Amino acid sequence: MTTTAPRIPREKEDDYTADVAERRREFLREQTGAGLEHVGRFSFDPGVLPGNVENYVGVAQVPIGVAGPLRINGEHAQGDFYVPLATTEGTLVASYNRGMRLLSECGGVKTTVVDDQMQRAPAFIFNDALQAREFGQWMDAHCDEIRAAAEATTRSGKLTYIGHYQVGPLRYLRVNYTTGDAAGQNMTGKATLAACEWIKENYPGGAEYVLSGAIDTDKKHSQINMLLTRGKRVVAEAVIKNDVLERLMGVDTKTLYDYRQIGMAGGFLAGSSYNGAHAANGLTGIFIATGQDAANISESHSGITYARLLENGDYYWSVTLTSLIVATYGGGTTLPTQRECLELLGCYGKGKVRKLAEICAATVLAGDTSLTSAILAGHWVTSHERLGRNR
Amino acid sequence: MTTTAPRIPREKEDDYTADVAERRREFLREQTGAGLEHVGRFSFDPGVLPGNVENYVGVAQVPIGVAGPLRINGEHAQGDFYVPLATTEGTLVASYNRGMRLLSECGGVKTTVVDDQMQRAPAFIFNDALQAREFGQWMDAHCDEIRAAAEATTRSGKLTYIGHYQVGPLRYLRVNYTTGDAAGQNMTGKATLAACEWIKENYPGGAEYVLSGAIDTDKKHSQINMLLTRGKRVVAEAVIKNDVLERLMGVDTKTLYDYRQIGMAGGFLAGSSYNGAHAANGLTGIFIATGQDAANISESHSGITYARLLENGDYYWSVTLTSLIVATYGGGTTLPTQRECLELLGCYGKGKVRKLAEICAATVLAGDTSLTSAILAGHWVTSHERLGRNR
Amino acid sequence: MTTTAPRIPREKEDDYTADVAERRREFLREQTGAGLEHVGRFSFDPGVLPGNVENYVGVAQVPIGVAGPLRINGEHAQGDFYVPLATTEGTLVASYNRGMRLLSECGGVKTTVVDDQMQRAPAFIFNDALQAREFGQWMDAHCDEIRAAAEATTRSGKLTYIGHYQVGPLRYLRVNYTTGDAAGQNMTGKATLAACEWIKENYPGGAEYVLSGAIDTDKKHSQINMLLTRGKRVVAEAVIKNDVLERLMGVDTKTLYDYRQIGMAGGFLAGSSYNGAHAANGLTGIFIATGQDAANISESHSGITYARLLENGDYYWSVTLTSLIVATYGGGTTLPTQRECLELLGCYGKGKVRKLAEICAATVLAGDTSLTSAILAGHWVTSHERLGRNR
Amino acid sequence: MTTTAPRIPREKEDDYTADVAERRREFLREQTGAGLEHVGRFSFDPGVLPGNVENYVGVAQVPIGVAGPLRINGEHAQGDFYVPLATTEGTLVASYNRGMRLLSECGGVKTTVVDDQMQRAPAFIFNDALQAREFGQWMDAHCDEIRAAAEATTRSGKLTYIGHYQVGPLRYLRVNYTTGDAAGQNMTGKATLAACEWIKENYPGGAEYVLSGAIDTDKKHSQINMLLTRGKRVVAEAVIKNDVLERLMGVDTKTLYDYRQIGMAGGFLAGSSYNGAHAANGLTGIFIATGQDAANISESHSGITYARLLENGDYYWSVTLTSLIVATYGGGTTLPTQRECLELLGCYGKGKVRKLAEICAATVLAGDTSLTSAILAGHWVTSHERLGRNR
Repeated sequence: MTTTAPRIPREKEDDYTADVAERRREFLREQTGAGLEHVGRFSFDPGVLPGNVENYVGVAQVPIGVAGPLRINGEHAQGDFYVPLATTEGTLVASYNRGMRLLSECGGVKTTVVDDQMQRAPAFIFNDALQAREFGQWMDAHCDEIRAAAEATTRSGKLTYIGHYQVGPLRYLRVNYTTGDAAGQNMTGKATLAACEWIKENYPGGAEYVLSGAIDTDKKHSQINMLLTRGKRVVAEAVIKNDVLERLMGVDTKTLYDYRQIGMAGGFLAGSSYNGAHAANGLTGIFIATGQDAANISESHSGITYARLLENGDYYWSVTLTSLIVATYGGGTTLPTQRECLELLGCYGKGKVRKLAEICAATVLAGDTSLTSAILAGHWVTSHERLGRNR
Repeated sequence: MTTTAPRIPREKEDDYTADVAERRREFLREQTGAGLEHVGRFSFDPGVLPGNVENYVGVAQVPIGVAGPLRINGEHAQGDFYVPLATTEGTLVASYNRGMRLLSECGGVKTTVVDDQMQRAPAFIFNDALQAREFGQWMDAHCDEIRAAAEATTRSGKLTYIGHYQVGPLRYLRVNYTTGDAAGQNMTGKATLAACEWIKENYPGGAEYVLSGAIDTDKKHSQINMLLTRGKRVVAEAVIKNDVLERLMGVDTKTLYDYRQIGMAGGFLAGSSYNGAHAANGLTGIFIATGQDAANISESHSGITYARLLENGDYYWSVTLTSLIVATYGGGTTLPTQRECLELLGCYGKGKVRKLAEICAATVLAGDTSLTSAILAGHWVTSHERLGRNR
Repeated sequence: MTTTAPRIPREKEDDYTADVAERRREFLREQTGAGLEHVGRFSFDPGVLPGNVENYVGVAQVPIGVAGPLRINGEHAQGDFYVPLATTEGTLVASYNRGMRLLSECGGVKTTVVDDQMQRAPAFIFNDALQAREFGQWMDAHCDEIRAAAEATTRSGKLTYIGHYQVGPLRYLRVNYTTGDAAGQNMTGKATLAACEWIKENYPGGAEYVLSGAIDTDKKHSQINMLLTRGKRVVAEAVIKNDVLERLMGVDTKTLYDYRQIGMAGGFLAGSSYNGAHAANGLTGIFIATGQDAANISESHSGITYARLLENGDYYWSVTLTSLIVATYGGGTTLPTQRECLELLGCYGKGKVRKLAEICAATVLAGDTSLTSAILAGHWVTSHERLGRNR
Repeated sequence: MTTTAPRIPREKEDDYTADVAERRREFLREQTGAGLEHVGRFSFDPGVLPGNVENYVGVAQVPIGVAGPLRINGEHAQGDFYVPLATTEGTLVASYNRGMRLLSECGGVKTTVVDDQMQRAPAFIFNDALQAREFGQWMDAHCDEIRAAAEATTRSGKLTYIGHYQVGPLRYLRVNYTTGDAAGQNMTGKATLAACEWIKENYPGGAEYVLSGAIDTDKKHSQINMLLTRGKRVVAEAVIKNDVLERLMGVDTKTLYDYRQIGMAGGFLAGSSYNGAHAANGLTGIFIATGQDAANISESHSGITYARLLENGDYYWSVTLTSLIVATYGGGTTLPTQRECLELLGCYGKGKVRKLAEICAATVLAGDTSLTSAILAGHWVTSHERLGRNR
């Protein structure tokens, strides 16, 4: 019953060469018949790849379209931006582009990072609830030592606070950090391991733990993320002028506001992770283009919108992304095309991560205004008919 | 206050040439200073891109690693698979690879698509609740005509059923379809528009609607997806032998089961969208490699695990992805590298979408066994230290 | 370690007499020193109690205040109602009373029962997902026989449909019924047991099940209840005139609508079961007064509000209770004070359950208008200061 | 259209006399024909009722059964308890009684209050997100003054911490308190009003707020309650001996544990507020008997169970109620029958509220063991047939 299919070739000495990649493609050709011609046509030296991938065979070439200019008046992002969106979904770039024009003509988007917390979440395991409660009290009393143990493992990570929540004899921790320009999952993992080991050694009588009690909640949407933030909590807001909206989108602000009431009730009914239109689309486009971990879309797409119909008929529209995970350091950010796209946004280099977060949020707002307007103006389906087919 | 930043160049006649792409990159260079050298080094004719992207400037080159072989004993996927994972996150491929070895040595993964539903979700708007209720009854009585109107717009889409849920004077519909080999969001949008228009014309006294009432829930996780399925509902299951687990992973099944109780409680506490380890990681890797809409990770990562510790010490482990959105037709599936990766899986061509869904689920199970074991064996952080750094 | 505390006295022959109740009180006096004087002063013959309680010792005397008149223009409830609210919370009756006056002066509340489903939810257990899927198909094909088996156990219960949802090798059923004037948990339990036994006998190869797979979700709030209804789904709606609101409540409709946006976002942020003000308060008052199972407040308090600010400045306000569990037959409905309170509402006797559901919803709307206005007019805390203290 | 139905009679001087109550009953008799004989037969002087009810007409007589003895080994509750359950649902007392016997024979229940937080949750409203963020920082820096302002309004309330969470330009506060022996909703409302007024006066430039931003979440279940506690977070835990379980319940621990896996997955699938059996039932019985606000069942029924199958075949079972709202002071606790039932539990008088919380949790655990066993042993339905009918 055991498989006897051959193993993928690897090279002990240096597994990151064009040669080894070709040898693996050749192996896969033999096994599956797939040609992998285009996959093999990458433009860089695989020697840059350690730390990004194993068993490297080549690249996915994901088309990038550019949307913009998008006027952003943020704390960190200021000016007009051209946003690279890596996607294979027709209409997407055009739609975001349209929203960016609307927002820019209305004076631009204000953006603000309002919180910043990355976490690992171990669980400490006791015999009974009383022990677990006492452990919580001890932990609160030894916060500084725990912090020191955690921060000794990292230059840029800072432990902000440890939330702890009890279930039966278990104490679930959520250890929160700021992580500089990195997304920080690895950094916080390492720091939290050190914190846990310190605790284990120093807690009177010892303490048993698992490094993940599942409340991080890494690579998953969750209500805890929405409430307590994961990564950046960032707000984009704009005042949309009724006349510009009518001219560009063919709907008025009153209609937007009426519709909003329906969408809010629908999102609540469905138990949805986001009560706006489609944050995931724009975010995914930026994430793939700029070397973010696109798996974090699972968390990053979540958010809450809030709007006001102003006395003068204009429309205040805000979107709050509660768990936006972005980086300008580490992960895929230094790879060739990815770095170029960060440069396109002025986000490569030290101290740029909040700028990137702001651009992400502004882009989401642009996309939401565009799609929502399209739904209401009745050309949602027709534009997809025109732009969204490749068969 | 209005932006005067220049617009992105477009070519009315044919906007999908290498020339136009270069002109746009040149424009962006001037505006931002970004070189976009590697972005411009794609291996195919941009003439294939209409329907996939607008304002094309080049490609993101996302590294692909291959994991496998993975033995799958599914209905549609049968044999040993080498799975392409496009990622920039070190350790990921190695970790999935390890899980695949475990599962394959234990006899492989059983996979089953248990439901298949793609939807659009308009809302019909009435003056009061009574009207909305009566509308619901009328709709149930005219199901066949509505289906006919919807299906007239598509060759492959079949309307399966219309769920409708009332809030105040609003009747939220969730119109469900099977969509052949396509993911089907566009197809179902078009069909549902036709259905709504038919209803509007034929409902006595007329009916007002918006095409989205937000309960699809497109590009968002939701409880309704988890319950009622979005895309494919697919199960991967395996019986893990205790001795193989101990040999390869350094943990035993009893420890897995004990830990599982903690993770389940943690996921419930956090209000999580998935109570396994990290479905999003493997799915994103496959999605980018094979031309799926990676924004659908927001929905697709959601699921429910269920396990049993067997009398003989072996471990039955299942993962149910409740809203896996995949396609082997449309979207990015025909693009050069994407098609090659589908071919690598034997998933290019007609009638392959459930095979792809099964491979996705099997891959998720492999990744979950690997990460969970790593957490318990204590080498989670250390392997990331070794493999996961690129700074 | 085992307790040697004495057992509570019981009387084998007839355990429902004033004598036995007194003997138990005497026993408790001896054990605990509690006098139980007032508990023992009930006004009826305990012979009516079999089926309602065991180990009877006396009664809780819960104060009833009456609120009203409340004008209801429903399908089943029509006219002016005086609503009995059993409560110990000061301000509650006064606040509901105030809301009822507002709604009545604005022309009354429209009420509509839009769905009606009570359920039991067994889970069928298989070896693998494929078996579970096939079981689902078989079940759909044998709906009529299953219905017949279920309905053979009950005069008033009708099986409406069986929803089934798969997780791994498990098929979770949610068997839905209408249950006449009863709440129906027992009736549906018995009917579903019969259905399951029929299935077990007739499914080729047999089928294993547990009678509850936890998705009923009996005595718990859940998203599935909100979506698919548990008990009655009932809407109360009213158009509130701005001038009446200002005169009686000291707020205007514009303020209500602005505030509503904040409350909706807050409810979404918190992961709340209800996005109105306090459905639970009025419902609990009615439930205790009229012999409903007050434990069902856990489910019944859940709902969704939806509002519109009309062009003329009036305010359309609706509340949809998605899982209101009420009865006018069975449970506590025939007990002396409980029956009297049902009579007060004209809800005692056959065919009155939807009338009661409508009154419940109308009462909730009254309470929500009152509390929301109080919060906005700034006298929320002060009225509690005046009315809500008993120390 | 306006109602002309007569108003309920009130007595300006003293509205809390037997006379006025009779006059109101007489009025209701005339209006509705309901006799209200038994409602009028209360055993106490209505002069005790100010602060508990308005428009008093009489009482609901809710039958009380007693379950026990229940051996509790808590911090505050120690000994054997006889628990009064006010209910009209047959089987309930018998079922809890059975579970109490099981637990007591196994050595009793350990109980621990692990957190204690009551809250009001205003929202502060700004023009943009930046202002809201700065407000949050200011608030953190002025915690002591805010606390002082809040605590000046109350003798027993202590402000523990202020959580704040941003959405767009809104800063949602959740102001947390311990509230002595009271449930504390009024106390915290008053204190939070004072805190908000202090903030409004002292925040540079002033600050606008509403006293409720809906994240308390008063009288509603919510994920925020489950995570961050509302009222008491209390754990009940017991080790159930396999042989006692088999003898008394007819099931073994292995079956319990297997079934638990199904129930956990079901609860997750359904989006449930509790993953145990039926906390609401026992809690409601105690709440009504002891003068708690039974509307709080909406929040109090929520919780998380966690279990372990021990090496020796015994079964560790814990239930964590995350938002149990109880009081031994204020509300209905001083009313005649209610006080007697508190006395029965030894919970009347100063400093008893945690004892009551522990008894509640222990009772819930007893009920869950009993119902779960009944489901598995197959006599769930039949016992309801025997005990649960009153028609």
